[in-house]
Amino acid sequence: MKKISISLLAAVSIDGRIAAYSGHKSDWTSKEDKDFLHSMLDASDCVVVGRNTYEIAREPLSKRNCIVFTNMSEKSDRGTVYFNPAKQDFSVFAKEKKYTSIAVLGGTGVYTYFLEHDLCTDLWLTIEPVVFGTGLALFETEKFVMKHFHLQSSRLLNSNGSILLHYTRL
Amino acid sequence: MKKISISLLAAVSIDGRIAAYSGHKSDWTSKEDKDFLHSMLDASDCVVVGRNTYEIAREPLSKRNCIVFTNMSEKSDRGTVYFNPAKQDFSVFAKEKKYTSIAVLGGTGVYTYFLEHDLCTDLWLTIEPVVFGTGLALFETEKFVMKHFHLQSSRLLNSNGSILLHYTRL
Repeated sequence: MKKISISLLAAVSIDGRIAAYSGHKSDWTSKEDKDFLHSMLDASDCVVVGRNTYEIAREPLSKRNCIVFTNMSEKSDRGTVYFNPAKQDFSVFAKEKKYTSIAVLGGTGVYTYFLEHDLCTDLWLTIEPVVFGTGLALFETEKFVMKHFHLQSSRLLNSNGSILLHYTRL
Repeated sequence: MKKISISLLAAVSIDGRIAAYSGHKSDWTSKEDKDFLHSMLDASDCVVVGRNTYEIAREPLSKRNCIVFTNMSEKSDRGTVYFNPAKQDFSVFAKEKKYTSIAVLGGTGVYTYFLEHDLCTDLWLTIEPVVFGTGLALFETEKFVMKHFHLQSSRLLNSNGSILLHYTRL
């Protein structure tokens, strides 16, 4: 059976924030990061997002095969499946659907779910050359964890200094 | 007059934490990051740290020319000067002392002071290939700021994937 690849994709500020506040649009990320993101989404079987992230990017996401994490009971339609992580096991669900390549787009709650359940195989991080000072972290676990990754590659995306880091889980 | 260079030096986890909790020792950073840090400190006129960071690393720091940020009135001794940022202006102080190369070692409160007062000329960030999930952020401002930097260089420090990023303030 083909191994499932689950890639967490995120753009962060130098100080590790995925957004300055809840609902903050990704208008601060570079064109090159967006191009990379779209190429990754094109190559994935489905896209996993949280309810807030879905609302912010509903229009572009509606073209994709979407799994929306939510605690509420919502009716799935066309390309969008609502998934309640408190009631279902994601790895069982992904196997049933025969997904082999999954892209996780956040926000913090969804990234943290995949980290805590050790379901993340790859982490693709674009660091944009800005500092926010405050905002939402990539992960927010209740307790300190120490998860080791390996840096596979780093790539400069543009002359401003946006840099893409590719990590795999050890 | 020679321009003052103020370098913020920090090791962070992939998820942008400088420590998992207050008092967390830097036993998780690589030998190569420590070697780099020491070479930077050797080349600096003085080292700026907060009270907690000073307590954690008092022994190695005592060999350096130290400025310890504190809100309390404390008596300076030999190489250590206690500095109260609420009562003194750091740039005036640095000019009086004729410092031209200053290394800032944190923690969060001290890094944030230099960011908010636009006193940081360089930011040297080592990203170690681990995730903490929770912990202390590099900066913690009250309000969202948007400060632009330029990525001067990136350098792989070892085969584990510790990577050193050098940013300058735009």
